[in-house]
Order: sequence, then structure tokens, then C-alpha cells
Amino acid sequence: MKTQMSGASGRGLPFAPSAAKWRPLGINEVTIEGGFWGERQGLNASALIDHVEHWLEKLGWTGNFDAAVQGRLPADRAGREFSDSEVYKLLEGMAWELGRSDDAELQARYDALVARVAAAQEPDGYLNTMFGRPGQGERYSDMEWGHELYCFGHLIQAGVARARTVGLDDTLVRVVIRAADHVCAEFGVDGRQAICGHAEIETALVELYRVTGERRYLDQARLFIERHGQGLLGEIFLGQQYFQDNVAVREATVLDGHAVRALYLAAGAVDLAVEDADAELLDAVTGQVRTTLARRTYLTGGMGAHHEGESFGLDWELPPDRAYAETCAGIASVMVNHRLTVATGDVRHADAVERTLYNLVAAAPAADGRGFFYTNLLHQRVPGVAPSLEEPAARSATSARPPFFTVSCCGSNLTRIFASLGAYLATVDDGGVQLHQYAPATIRVRIAAGDVMLRMATGYPEGGVIEVTAVEAPKDPWTLTLRVPSWAAGAVVRTSAGDLPVAPGYVEVPGPAAGETVTLDLPMAPRWTYADPRVDAVRGQVAVERGPMVLALESIDLGGDVATARISTGQSPVERDGQVLVPIRTATPADSDWPFGPSAEVVASATGEERLVPLIPYHAWANRGPSTMRIWIPEG
Amino acid sequence: MKTQMSGASGRGLPFAPSAAKWRPLGINEVTIEGGFWGERQGLNASALIDHVEHWLEKLGWTGNFDAAVQGRLPADRAGREFSDSEVYKLLEGMAWELGRSDDAELQARYDALVARVAAAQEPDGYLNTMFGRPGQGERYSDMEWGHELYCFGHLIQAGVARARTVGLDDTLVRVVIRAADHVCAEFGVDGRQAICGHAEIETALVELYRVTGERRYLDQARLFIERHGQGLLGEIFLGQQYFQDNVAVREATVLDGHAVRALYLAAGAVDLAVEDADAELLDAVTGQVRTTLARRTYLTGGMGAHHEGESFGLDWELPPDRAYAETCAGIASVMVNHRLTVATGDVRHADAVERTLYNLVAAAPAADGRGFFYTNLLHQRVPGVAPSLEEPAARSATSARPPFFTVSCCGSNLTRIFASLGAYLATVDDGGVQLHQYAPATIRVRIAAGDVMLRMATGYPEGGVIEVTAVEAPKDPWTLTLRVPSWAAGAVVRTSAGDLPVAPGYVEVPGPAAGETVTLDLPMAPRWTYADPRVDAVRGQVAVERGPMVLALESIDLGGDVATARISTGQSPVERDGQVLVPIRTATPADSDWPFGPSAEVVASATGEERLVPLIPYHAWANRGPSTMRIWIPEG
Repeated sequence: MKTQMSGASGRGLPFAPSAAKWRPLGINEVTIEGGFWGERQGLNASALIDHVEHWLEKLGWTGNFDAAVQGRLPADRAGREFSDSEVYKLLEGMAWELGRSDDAELQARYDALVARVAAAQEPDGYLNTMFGRPGQGERYSDMEWGHELYCFGHLIQAGVARARTVGLDDTLVRVVIRAADHVCAEFGVDGRQAICGHAEIETALVELYRVTGERRYLDQARLFIERHGQGLLGEIFLGQQYFQDNVAVREATVLDGHAVRALYLAAGAVDLAVEDADAELLDAVTGQVRTTLARRTYLTGGMGAHHEGESFGLDWELPPDRAYAETCAGIASVMVNHRLTVATGDVRHADAVERTLYNLVAAAPAADGRGFFYTNLLHQRVPGVAPSLEEPAARSATSARPPFFTVSCCGSNLTRIFASLGAYLATVDDGGVQLHQYAPATIRVRIAAGDVMLRMATGYPEGGVIEVTAVEAPKDPWTLTLRVPSWAAGAVVRTSAGDLPVAPGYVEVPGPAAGETVTLDLPMAPRWTYADPRVDAVRGQVAVERGPMVLALESIDLGGDVATARISTGQSPVERDGQVLVPIRTATPADSDWPFGPSAEVVASATGEERLVPLIPYHAWANRGPSTMRIWIPEG
Repeated sequence: MKTQMSGASGRGLPFAPSAAKWRPLGINEVTIEGGFWGERQGLNASALIDHVEHWLEKLGWTGNFDAAVQGRLPADRAGREFSDSEVYKLLEGMAWELGRSDDAELQARYDALVARVAAAQEPDGYLNTMFGRPGQGERYSDMEWGHELYCFGHLIQAGVARARTVGLDDTLVRVVIRAADHVCAEFGVDGRQAICGHAEIETALVELYRVTGERRYLDQARLFIERHGQGLLGEIFLGQQYFQDNVAVREATVLDGHAVRALYLAAGAVDLAVEDADAELLDAVTGQVRTTLARRTYLTGGMGAHHEGESFGLDWELPPDRAYAETCAGIASVMVNHRLTVATGDVRHADAVERTLYNLVAAAPAADGRGFFYTNLLHQRVPGVAPSLEEPAARSATSARPPFFTVSCCGSNLTRIFASLGAYLATVDDGGVQLHQYAPATIRVRIAAGDVMLRMATGYPEGGVIEVTAVEAPKDPWTLTLRVPSWAAGAVVRTSAGDLPVAPGYVEVPGPAAGETVTLDLPMAPRWTYADPRVDAVRGQVAVERGPMVLALESIDLGGDVATARISTGQSPVERDGQVLVPIRTATPADSDWPFGPSAEVVASATGEERLVPLIPYHAWANRGPSTMRIWIPEG
């Protein structure tokens, strides 16, 4: 099984468990052909990769590798301690894109970038531009904040992407194996008893084990994962939960601390549990993620309710205006939930992937691919100012997507998820094919009964009809599994045998014969959505969703600040000419010296006349100049 | 005028403008005699001062001065870059306490502490244990974070307290004058064009001008204030507004950035404006504070809605569960609003002083004076764990008051405000006496018509009756001004001439003759309080207030987590046996996989039977073990 998965036979798999409920597909088994995600893959290829590459060069973060080779460090070093990782994530994004497309110009840029990185590797495999030279901190002298293993983790992931697309005989793969061997030698059973302040190395090492079959990488991943919760990292102001060093991974009950760290660690723990048949660990992480989805996740799928520490809040603490909901946390949640979909077959994880892709990952990049959100608020109170096009921005949220940030992890992260998006659409098992996400696409796989080629035709998520046609199918019976999203009560599956009403969850139908079509019809009427009453921050407010999309009210459509909007939910939202319209009045609270008092004095009621105002998909907001925006709209 | 105010004739004035609407009183003109604040002054004298002194010693922050003298720095330095200021604030608190009481033992401790600080001063007046020695940063090499001028500011304030209680012929006053002269020489017109990342030196220098009459201190204060907003400080992740370097003081429209920094700067700006007859500056700061009260202040008077940067939030952004509402910001708000009361005679500032004293300053210290809150949440979601009694705590909030913090500015700050509390009760002008805060107290002042001695007898804030008896009064007519708080609709003033219904605001009555009594009768029925609808975080929730007190629901009284409480406001709160009781039901939302959905599925209604549950004054919460608590209670 492991041998099957390794090396050049990896087929472009973004991750590849050797044992799971289902088997994920690689980017060369699924081709997205236009539509919502096809556009974004195109934008990634035509603009975002180039944009990130340009800024990494402009800010000198790529140049750090040259400076290392030329002995100009630390004098000429640019960027924060983790800037190397941005180059690695871009390399990963480029590798997936090269695996998906055939672009000689991109290949040349990629090769040149790899050569610069490879040149900076030291003879013992160590590679980092921030540590280890005279005038720099010693290697591994700052496990809390140094990010050395985090950088190695992203380097390894970039190599894994390469191994899965071109095979093990590759420059970057060789760099990565030397680096991973250095890490194992340094941090093994008899080595430094340490962990990195930012998880990432864990999932990377399991993945490297998967492509190489080398058990030592899996063992090292286990060492790192099991060392969490022992207090090996120093005390910091933000508390040990910031880097998940307050409790053992298998004893935690919910994701806590820095959201991206927590999610990357969870991804690694799922990978380890699956590879090492550690059912207890898998159960623990599954429980943590499910509790996190039930209590610590925004309607958009966003994770992280605190700006301070970029961390999860407490249960039910989900302020829309102070949402952090970092783009990277959304990407990491997609990684974790796709892993759990594949490992457990539980539909709620695929539902979470869909929600997060449409309402967070899709919301982050600018329409032209030359900017992105770092945080993804659900309520923008002030329009803010247009960001500089020349200087990197701070992380604080505005109503515009800056071109780059002083901490700019999200841009390079987007390049890798967009390029590998096809892999999230479907899985297979011996008996058939499972469709998790819907997009115009072609799927070519082999199952026990034979080769299957499916063509998905759909206008999703604008339309709710998904036609799955078998271009090629085995003669023997096989099973097609379709995900009916949790919001899609009233869905129908149409097959040659007739129409079948289906409930949310996974529905299995006989696999269509060649030339036949199975149609999933999802109800797309816009709907009111309320929050659990323990989410105090949105009490008395309602959101509108349509299909997988969370909608938003933007001041540009309202013709005024969204602070004054009141919505009436007496009847359903209206859909007209492709727009969702809701009845809105405008409240005009009187300003007072003190904003608290007996009801009659300070609680203004809506005074304006009710009118129908269009909502837009949340992902599309902030593309028309400075604005205010809210997803949750006060009723009344 | 200035000469009158300066030196030993300062009469224990916590601050002393030379020109203002009213003249503040010193701590030897007003004696609080028991009651709510008398108890807290007693606690300060008997426990809090000693407690802070003990911890400063234990953590080595006091010892840093000895280490400086003995040449053991930087090796033996303890604490953060601003730890010197804690010793200075304690010295200020001790000085006010010595001005109020006559405690030989405290005097000896005070003298010993002053001697240790004085010994560390360098020949040119510089005094700081963090900078300037071999192995330390150079003097003024880190204006953003070094806090050198902030420390000087608190040192000067400690000296001003001494000058106002014993006069200018004092060891610490001499230290302070040398230090202030050093600051003027270093940062004057031709000196370093710099400001400190943490305001404090500004108000301190104006105050030193007031006690010495030396114009150069006032001029230096103006230089520092006018330099704000020029971007003299380096760019930081939190933005230039963090230290009020993004906009000129006279151009800002609202307080922004780090709350304590903003408020200390505002205090200095008011002081400067008053001394230098700068009406434009006074108007600017007054407007900023009024907008801050109208839009950025919690019901408790707390300021600062963001943990990140300990800063003000945007307008209407006032989450109760993530309130920062730092104790020091509350103290600083009292300082600023008392200054504005005195400068402008506008009652809303005295109202703000009352609200903040009862619901924030009083809430901070533990009942035994041996712990305190750093942040003051309005909604505690989880009980948390009991803090260590041996180790300083991080700043994150729990439902218990830790003994000390790694950043522990609030404890020493409490010592100085409690010891000087008497000064906030009353002011005078030529025509009479103004009473702003009510407590059992004796006031001895001289006005134009002659000597006045008033005795206030009251059970306030338990009871609403305040009897003001003239023990001594001029024969000629004089005016007694009483503050009717903004919440006290239906108040009555009873004089020998009869009963007079009075509206909120300042009410003037003829000053009583010797032996006569004027009684203010404030309505103390508990009342429902609602928020401006733009405060989204408390929509659909109601608070209960009684007199100046904000009340709270604590889980110990509810017998369960406050997350499940729903309040019914159909009738008024009940008062029985000194307790306020409100009708509460307990809601039991069902847990679900995903907390958002159509109303029927996820919005649970209250299922428990309605019962009367006691509320407690907010300041008294967290004194009975781990608990959850909320001020804003969902209706329904």
C-alpha cells in the first residue's frame, strides 16, 4: 500500500493517507473546467503566483538565500524570522500549478527559485537564513519564536508537492530529504527534546514518509506531536496554549490558542494517526475539530476570534467585528477537514470544507489577484483607507485587500490551495466514487470494477443542478456517492430510475453506465440563518445564506453605513435577476452624551421606510472601494 | 496665583490648576469618614500599600535601584523596562497616605524607599535602572518601548505628591527637580526631538511647574504634547495611534490607541491648556473625552475594548466578554474627568468620575487588599482557575484577582488613587462649595465669604439620602452646589425653605447657615438599562443599575452558568432585604454539530421556570470562588 503511494506514482495528491475510509484523488485525476473555482485557479496561475513572487523579491525575502550564499548575512537579511517559509509555500504553489498545467515559463522561474534555495543549504542539511551564522542567533536557540522547524516543514511540503508531481528524482526533493534527515538527527529520541513554537513540521514529516516510505520521518513526526503539552517551550505572555504546549494532543478537547498553529498541528496528528493506526489519537483530534466546528467557528467557516494571539476564543465567543478568521486558518481548516472527511467519511467535515472554501478562501484574494485579506471580518465598522500599493500593510483589517503584508503568510498559502483545489472534489474507494464538492470538472479514476471517467456539469454555486455524466464506466455495478450539504433540505437526485428525495448527508446511488447521467438538484432559495443563543455577539441579528454562500450587506448597496440597517424577516428573501433582495429599513439613533439608559431614551427604532436592498456574496465584498459591511443584520 | 498654589501651600492637592472654573481641594481639606470609600481607604492603608511594597521587593523591582548603586546592572536586573515606575507610583501612594494619616511606621518605610531610589540617581539627574550602563541599551535609544520618560513622569508625580504634602524641602523633591532639569536639558527646543512611547511625563511636568512655579517645566510639557502626531516614534505593528503619534493632540476627535497612554496624554493636555490659557487645546481634549464617553466607554466606565494593544475600539465596539477596561485606564479616566470637571464645570465629567469609581476602581482590588484585577470584563464566560499566590500572573482575565502580575501597573496605581480619594469629593470657588461625590466626610475650606466646615452624613451608595450640615458657615450668603447624577431623575433637595424637585445636573442652593442641614434625596430604585442599538455586542440584553452601581449576575447566585440565563423585564426589579432581585429563567440550548441554522432548529427558548435571582454590585463579584458573571443579561 505504502509503496503504491510513494514516489512518482503519487499522482499529484495534496495529501496521501495509506489507510482511510476513502482514498483522496490527485490533481491529475480531477480537472476543474471553468466555473467558480476554475476562475480562481486561472487567477492563481495568471496573477497571484506572479504577484507573490514579485513581492517576495521586492521585499528581499527571496534575496536572503542569495545573501546566505554570498556571506552577506545577517547584514543584508530582510523580513521576519519566518520569511523563508514564504518562498517555500510559493514553491509548493508553483509545484502544484506545474503539476496541473504545462507552463514552460513558470517551470523556468520555478527552477531558478529552487536553485537559489538549494544553494543556501549547508553541508549537514540545515537551511535557514535567520540563524546559525556569526552575528545571528545560534541554531535552535529560540524554539518559541525562531520558526526554524516551521520553515523546514514548509520546505518539506514543497518537496512533497514536487515528489507527487514529478517524482523523487528532483533537485528540491533531494534538498528536502537532506533537510529532513538533519531534523531527525537533531531532534530524534536522543537529540534535542524540543518542539517548534509553530506547528507545521509534523504534517510535513508524515507526508515525506508517505512519498519516501522512510519510517524515520513518521517516527520523528510522532516525537514532535507527543512532545506537545509537556511545557518544553518557554512561558510567554500569551500562555502555553498559544503554541499548543499546555496539553497533550491526545488529551485536548477543543482547538485552542493560535488558530493556524492549532490547525497545522491537528493536520499532522490526523496524518500520524492514520499512518500509524492510532485510533485514540484520531478520535481525540476528530472530537477537537467537531467541538471547534460546533462552538468556535464563524458562519463563514472562519476560525480565530481573537486578534490578540491570532487565537481561538472561548466557546461561543464569535464577535463579527473583531473576527480574526485569518486566511491561513481557513486554508488550514480546509486541510484538516478534508483529511477528516477522507479518514472518517463523516459529512460534516466535507460541509466545513465547502463553507470555508466559498466564504473564506474565496473571500481572501482581490478580484485581480494582486492583493488579499489577512483577516476576514464579518462586520466592517469603518471604511478605512485604501492600502498602499508600494508598502506592505500591517495585519489590521481595512475594507480593502492590501497587496502584501509585513507578515504575509496568507498570499503564498493561497497559491498552494488554489493550484491543488481539484483534489478536494472527490475521493474513491474500491466500490466507487464519492463527490464532495461540486464544480464543472472531469474525473478520471480506477476503481475495483474498472476505469471511471465522470464529467460534472454545473453552474454551482449560482445554480443548484449538478449533472454527473459517466463518459466511461465499468460494466459491473459500482456506487456513486453524492454529498447533500447540511443546508440543502429538500434536495432531489434524478437517475434513470426516477427522482429520489434525499436528506443532507452522503447519498449512494448506483453508478451510472457509460453515457448516463445522475443529476443532483439542490434547493437554492435564499434563507434566513440564526445563531445559537450563546453566541451573544449576534443576538437579535440574522444572516442570509444562499446555497453554500454566506451573503453580506455592503454600504455601497445600502447607500449608507450598515450600522443603521434593520432587516425585516416576516417573509423570505426575494430573488430577482440573479440578486438576493431583503427588506431593510434604516434606523437613525440619536447621538447622546452617554449611550446607556432607559429604553425610551436611547433605543432608537428604525425610522426609514422599508425597501428591498440587494445582498452580495460575502466573498465578493470590498471590491468597489471603501465600504462598511455586515453579515449579521439586526432584526427590527 | 501660581505662588499661592506652589510649595508647601499646596495643601495635598492631587492636581492643582491655577485657572479653572472651580478650585480643587486637597486631601487635608476633605476627610472621608467611613462608608464605602472610607473602607477602601482603610484597606489601602492597612493592606494594599503593604502588599504592593512586598511584591515589588519580592520580584526584585525595588532591588534594581540597589543593584544600580552596587554596579550589579544589568546582570541582576529584574522586571520589565518600566518596573522603576511601579516603585514611583507606590511612593506617590505612600506620600498621599502620609499626607492623610500620621503613621510613623509608614513614614520610616517611605524614607527608606526614597533613600534607595535617590542613591541610584546619576550626577546629571538621569535615573533609570534599565538603560545607560555597559551592557544595557543607551539612554533614550528606545523611545518606542523604553519607557524612560514615562518612568520620569511617575517619579515627578511622586515628588509632586510630596511637595504638596510636606513642601519643597524634601529629599524626593530634590531628586525630582534634578531629574526634571535633566529631561528639560535633554529634550528641550534644541535637544532631542523625541517623545516617549508612553505618555505620563506631560502631566507630571505641568504639575511640577505648579508646585515650583518654574516655567521651564510647563514649556517642556508643551514641547512633548505638541510633538505628538509628528511620527517621531518608529512604526510599530500596532500602528502609530497606539502611542498617539498618528495625529496632533489638538486635531484628534476621539481618544484612540492604547487607553492608558491616551488618557495620561489627555490629562497632560488639559493641564497644559489650563495653565497656558490654551482654549483651543482645552476644547479639543474636552471634545475627545466627550465623544469617548458617548461611544467608547463601557457601562462600568471602563475604557479599552481591545486586548490587542490594550486599546480603545472603534465607536460602539464594546464587547462585554472581551472588554479590556484596564484598571489603570479607569484610574486615568477619573484623573482626566476630574480635571475636566474642574476646568469646565460640566456635570457629565463628574458623572463619569462617579461611574468609574464605583464600577471600575472599586472593582479592581480584592476584598482583602491582597490582589487586584488588571482587566475588568463585563462578562466572564468561564470560571477559570485560582491564581497562584506565589507567582505573578499574566494579564489574561480570570474570575479571581491575582496577587500580582508580570506587568503590574494597576496595583501601585490603586494605592495612589485610594489615598487621595478625598480630593475628588468637592471643589470651591469664591462663591461657595460644590459637592461632586457623596460620602460620609468633613470638608473644611475657605471661600470669599469666610470659613466653611461641612459634614456630609450619608449611607450612600446603599441609601440615597445625603445630609450636608454646616458645622461652620459664613454669615454672608454663599452657595452650595450639589451634583444630581444623570441617572437620578426625580431627585429632591430638602432645605429649610422646603423641598425642591431637581433635575440631573448641578443644582445650586443657598449655603446653609451654621447648624443647618441641606438634604439631597436621590431615588435609589433599581432600574433597567439598555444600550444604544449601535452597541451590537449587547443587543437584546439588559443591565440593571441601582444608584451609581452597575449590578451583575454571578453564577453563584444563579446556581448555574450565566450563559443560560434569560431575564424578564415586564416589571421592575424587586428590592428585598437589601438585595436586588430579578426574574430569571434558565435556557438550555441543545448542542448541535453546527451552531447556525433556521430559527426553529438552533434558537432555543428559555425552558426553566421563572424565579427571582439576586444580583450583586459588579464591584463585589469574584469574591466567592470561581464563577461566571454577566452584567448584560439576555431578555426573553
